[in-house]
Amino acid sequence: MLIRLGYDIGLSFLAPAPVTALLSVHPSRYADLREPDVVTTTPVVPIEQFFDLFGNRMSRFVAPAGEIRLQGRTLIEDTGLPDAVHWGAREIPVERLPPETLRYLLGSRYCEVELLSPIAAELFGHVAPGWARVQAICDWVHTRVSYSFGQSSPTRTALDVFTGRAGVCRDFQHLAITFCRAMHIPARYAAGYLGDIGVPAAPIPMDFSAWFEVYLEDRWWTFDARHNTPRQGRVLMATGLDAADAALTTTYGAATLTHFEVVSDEVPAGAHPFA
Amino acid sequence: MLIRLGYDIGLSFLAPAPVTALLSVHPSRYADLREPDVVTTTPVVPIEQFFDLFGNRMSRFVAPAGEIRLQGRTLIEDTGLPDAVHWGAREIPVERLPPETLRYLLGSRYCEVELLSPIAAELFGHVAPGWARVQAICDWVHTRVSYSFGQSSPTRTALDVFTGRAGVCRDFQHLAITFCRAMHIPARYAAGYLGDIGVPAAPIPMDFSAWFEVYLEDRWWTFDARHNTPRQGRVLMATGLDAADAALTTTYGAATLTHFEVVSDEVPAGAHPFA
Amino acid sequence: MLIRLGYDIGLSFLAPAPVTALLSVHPSRYADLREPDVVTTTPVVPIEQFFDLFGNRMSRFVAPAGEIRLQGRTLIEDTGLPDAVHWGAREIPVERLPPETLRYLLGSRYCEVELLSPIAAELFGHVAPGWARVQAICDWVHTRVSYSFGQSSPTRTALDVFTGRAGVCRDFQHLAITFCRAMHIPARYAAGYLGDIGVPAAPIPMDFSAWFEVYLEDRWWTFDARHNTPRQGRVLMATGLDAADAALTTTYGAATLTHFEVVSDEVPAGAHPFA
Amino acid sequence: MLIRLGYDIGLSFLAPAPVTALLSVHPSRYADLREPDVVTTTPVVPIEQFFDLFGNRMSRFVAPAGEIRLQGRTLIEDTGLPDAVHWGAREIPVERLPPETLRYLLGSRYCEVELLSPIAAELFGHVAPGWARVQAICDWVHTRVSYSFGQSSPTRTALDVFTGRAGVCRDFQHLAITFCRAMHIPARYAAGYLGDIGVPAAPIPMDFSAWFEVYLEDRWWTFDARHNTPRQGRVLMATGLDAADAALTTTYGAATLTHFEVVSDEVPAGAHPFA
Repeated sequence: MLIRLGYDIGLSFLAPAPVTALLSVHPSRYADLREPDVVTTTPVVPIEQFFDLFGNRMSRFVAPAGEIRLQGRTLIEDTGLPDAVHWGAREIPVERLPPETLRYLLGSRYCEVELLSPIAAELFGHVAPGWARVQAICDWVHTRVSYSFGQSSPTRTALDVFTGRAGVCRDFQHLAITFCRAMHIPARYAAGYLGDIGVPAAPIPMDFSAWFEVYLEDRWWTFDARHNTPRQGRVLMATGLDAADAALTTTYGAATLTHFEVVSDEVPAGAHPFA
Repeated sequence: MLIRLGYDIGLSFLAPAPVTALLSVHPSRYADLREPDVVTTTPVVPIEQFFDLFGNRMSRFVAPAGEIRLQGRTLIEDTGLPDAVHWGAREIPVERLPPETLRYLLGSRYCEVELLSPIAAELFGHVAPGWARVQAICDWVHTRVSYSFGQSSPTRTALDVFTGRAGVCRDFQHLAITFCRAMHIPARYAAGYLGDIGVPAAPIPMDFSAWFEVYLEDRWWTFDARHNTPRQGRVLMATGLDAADAALTTTYGAATLTHFEVVSDEVPAGAHPFA
Repeated sequence: MLIRLGYDIGLSFLAPAPVTALLSVHPSRYADLREPDVVTTTPVVPIEQFFDLFGNRMSRFVAPAGEIRLQGRTLIEDTGLPDAVHWGAREIPVERLPPETLRYLLGSRYCEVELLSPIAAELFGHVAPGWARVQAICDWVHTRVSYSFGQSSPTRTALDVFTGRAGVCRDFQHLAITFCRAMHIPARYAAGYLGDIGVPAAPIPMDFSAWFEVYLEDRWWTFDARHNTPRQGRVLMATGLDAADAALTTTYGAATLTHFEVVSDEVPAGAHPFA
Repeated sequence: MLIRLGYDIGLSFLAPAPVTALLSVHPSRYADLREPDVVTTTPVVPIEQFFDLFGNRMSRFVAPAGEIRLQGRTLIEDTGLPDAVHWGAREIPVERLPPETLRYLLGSRYCEVELLSPIAAELFGHVAPGWARVQAICDWVHTRVSYSFGQSSPTRTALDVFTGRAGVCRDFQHLAITFCRAMHIPARYAAGYLGDIGVPAAPIPMDFSAWFEVYLEDRWWTFDARHNTPRQGRVLMATGLDAADAALTTTYGAATLTHFEVVSDEVPAGAHPFA
């Protein structure tokens, strides 16, 4: 399956300000790209790219005063398979986890692991370890938290979600991540494209999405406490401890969002993918 | 100057539990070691070592039920110079910061940068940028926060320190780090040995200490909002975003501290360093 | 001046639920009423009325499943004068404050006085005590906090407002109240009608409003950190420690707001007030 | 049974400061007093007494610079019966609660009712209403929270106790009160004497204690999530929404505690009570 990806984001600045962006497809998907994945701006400004601490491809530039548009489009090959489900995937004891997964057991900006550890043990300690436990966590979060655009905030933490029981996709994942870590299961935040491929007509405008990954058995697996059902067509852009690491744009100076458009559509079989 | 370093830490477990430790001297100081720096345990258990996400040397082992002692001792060559002071060191604009410093501008578990950004701008926005601003931040924290062992807690954040105005060394550094990042100055947490070398008789038992580093001009510099004066004999063990990354021991299971001893003494000139 | 007051509030319930309301004019204004001030509902349900802990007139009833409308209208005589300003009003030392004002020095649900006391002393400790200090507090809050309907939440506290710097009228007052109490000035929350009388054309729909009162010299005075200018036509409904005590409706069961209309209009001279 | 009550509290001030104290026996116990209940100070300062918003007897005075001792002793007649237990006591629906109990359903400084309502419903919604539910709440808090003097703080809220699972007696009660209110059961904080009468040798020094009261059936009943067993010899001093209302001393200026002694002993039968 081919997926057409793209975005067009407008930001308005009163004064020139540095911006960093994680708007590129994640390096783990480079082999699937069928077109270059380039960040462009209008007006054109020099853009520097490098890998961040978590291996994401970061762009950096200075936005001039006034409006700037960030635009990109690319084409990616996808299996078209929904998120893998493997009920037999086991929890790995901390002493045998790959060292690079250990940091994902600890607290982070939006995931206060110590604060939610006692209730996590009470809610999920009796559930069979492994995939079933992670799924129980997703079920709990999905059922108890309601989606509410108006009730989120960039400073909302997992504890806030636990008490307020409402939020947007990042909030669902933060709470689920925190519960997983509290149970000693490595969990990391993921952000990317999630189109409505394979989903009965979704009338809402496309946006970027957040999900999360847990380390079980021998690799990272995708979970999504917001949708809580396997989905097709996720295209990863960034991972990190939580949303603090994976903000798609970070502006060092006051900015206003003036435009926001995201595309993530399956290219129908037979269609010319370069159209 | 030669400094004799060592620790002897007792932990008691009801059941076997994995432990990770950052008790080794930081790789940046390997060239200065004059003795091997080995973590040993009593009873002896297999210890695995590797580098963590931040480049610290991490040890991992499974503690058996009962008491375990973690012990180490080594000898390090030190310049004996106090922390460098360079009033001319400039702030680097975000667009020219080395990419690997950028993550140290953002929020982390104990450093809620967004929450303290407005007050940081009010308190330090008018101060000359660069070294003077960082020093003003340290002066503010040092003056307004009182050292109080009883009023800290492992979950205390920079905002808690700002409101409660009391804490231990990690709390001072978290608040200062948060203010620095709010002013767009990269700041990271540091933990290590800090003996009383060059300090008029300090009657308190030695402990590990926390300080922080900021990126100015072309490198990281040491600051310490707790002591707020250049000190001799710091030996770095771990750096990270904040104390969540640099806990000297992390136990994955309930543990009780049964013993705690740290040594960090200058070896008098002429003394046999292997005594 | 005569002011026509009224409200029409729709709430929808899935199941019958008790409701309490503070929708009556405050007893301190009874002498000014020119029409009865009665709460009615559609469908009609029995309503009980009594005074709450703070002397407000509270209504209580059981809402049936489905929609209920709460309606009231009354007519009140008002001096038409703007809020009194008395720069000479002095702070009263705690030992000479009337006993009934003392509770208004302490923390409450949305006003964490201890947490903001150090910064209050730093910001306002040097300002002349009395009216000038309260005005300085209002100026600070009015200037530093931006009005933002979308960024409030029923659980937002004064500390949240201090860090987030945005909110609705209750948020402005909570922060100002907290600062006043931290300076040992009794401050209480007030809710009521605030029409746009005397204000150049205000195109926004009328709502109830919040302000606050401080005790200086020998009585309570009205302040309003949201508008921060003397206003005409305030009609008090409820006072309390903070918004926890003065919620205009409290439902003991899930409810949805289906309608909301508030009227607070000057009756033009010569108009028949009963029209 | 006769109980000898008394206290001797030393406070040290750098500058003269107003103090309020709730060190008198609660008015509801006046009929039981067998000696006058007078607050005295050394040095002697004028003391004013009045009732506070919650009906407690409050003392107010100005402490001079230096040390002041607050002392009192009295003798009270007590039934000697343990706290009443009445498993048949029913929850009263909100619409039939006495109006004066309604405020005890809402949030207060240390009891964030809204924040803990969802988890309260999850933990206690299935328990039989009435006494059994309150007892289930006490059992939960008693079992899950550990007593830890070092981990409390004057700013610790019910949510902090829920997450941190440790605290002193006030912390246990705050969490239990919050859960009760979340279940629409009026609950208020209580502070007073609780000697070790009827308790097998308690080697710890006497202190004041906190418990709480809930309104069931037709009156307030005593519960104590800290001890969670009926106790003899409680002598009430103050009630309020939470510890913010019932602090035994409040100083309006920095003070250091220099002495603290509390007596609450049964006078053995036959002993001369005035000895």
